[in-house]
Amino acid sequence: MTVRSVAHEALSRLVLDVPDFPEPGVVFKDITPLLADHVGFAAVVAALAETGRDETGATCVDAVVGLEARGFVFAAPVALALGVGFVPVRKAGKLPRSAHQVSYTLEYGAASLELHHDALTPGDRVLVVDDVLATGGTLLAARQLVEACGATVAGVALLMELGFLDGRAVVGDLPLHPIVTI
Amino acid sequence: MTVRSVAHEALSRLVLDVPDFPEPGVVFKDITPLLADHVGFAAVVAALAETGRDETGATCVDAVVGLEARGFVFAAPVALALGVGFVPVRKAGKLPRSAHQVSYTLEYGAASLELHHDALTPGDRVLVVDDVLATGGTLLAARQLVEACGATVAGVALLMELGFLDGRAVVGDLPLHPIVTI
Repeated sequence: MTVRSVAHEALSRLVLDVPDFPEPGVVFKDITPLLADHVGFAAVVAALAETGRDETGATCVDAVVGLEARGFVFAAPVALALGVGFVPVRKAGKLPRSAHQVSYTLEYGAASLELHHDALTPGDRVLVVDDVLATGGTLLAARQLVEACGATVAGVALLMELGFLDGRAVVGDLPLHPIVTI
Repeated sequence: MTVRSVAHEALSRLVLDVPDFPEPGVVFKDITPLLADHVGFAAVVAALAETGRDETGATCVDAVVGLEARGFVFAAPVALALGVGFVPVRKAGKLPRSAHQVSYTLEYGAASLELHHDALTPGDRVLVVDDVLATGGTLLAARQLVEACGATVAGVALLMELGFLDGRAVVGDLPLHPIVTI
């Protein structure tokens, strides 16, 4: 069993489909049973972290960017596993200092995300970590924020890609690494 | 140097005071420079995790509860370090299934927190992890949610306690373990 196949099995077993949440017609992916299972959670973190390593196993990114709020749960342990800094992309009004801001639409609503101006160094190559790729609005906003700092998204580590929503077409030519595609 | 003294030094050096955020008169503790420093971040996670171990070094809690959103950044790695599940307490409307809800006031506003009914097993002893203890409203709500599930807060691991706000008096007889008290 590879790290990735163990993670795949954990996701298949421990993510619940909750229909009609947060609104009718949307099927929500509830990751709380995965988080409650420390073996499954650790397997998923290990698989996500692989995306930030080269073929020799060395870390090949300068920072891990996590998206509020569920992305934080995975991105923080991935940053610690890779031995690089953790950089939060937050919802509007949460970061206390001078920040870039991008507005975006998501599966069920609209919002803005922010990133501190000094959060990344120009030239940094970052790994973005989030749980689910749906319509791609959040991830596109995160990409724009990273690039506004002069940095580059070297890869995107995801638990799940909801292929039927075609978020992949929205975010542009990013290397996406979902553990599971649905 | 103990784990705790390394974490203390990291907090002293890497947490920024931002005056008048989010409103005039409030001094916000900006933890983003700490998160960006993987050595400092790892030291703080290690110190927080110690709170969930007994004198032999064995894990002595059944789960780690983290409070949205900044608490997630610390609670998730602490749960992985202790080898127990991670249980998120979320802001109202984010958890997709049947949940307990508690309203609370905080340093600058009011809100509600939720915890899935099945998130904890009656009799569980949990470690609550958050970044800052301010007026205590959030932590009291988290305690009430844990107890509504029939579980007990065995300890609270915190980066910082703002002693001048006296949140300790609000939360009742909880074992609080701040790395730093200001």
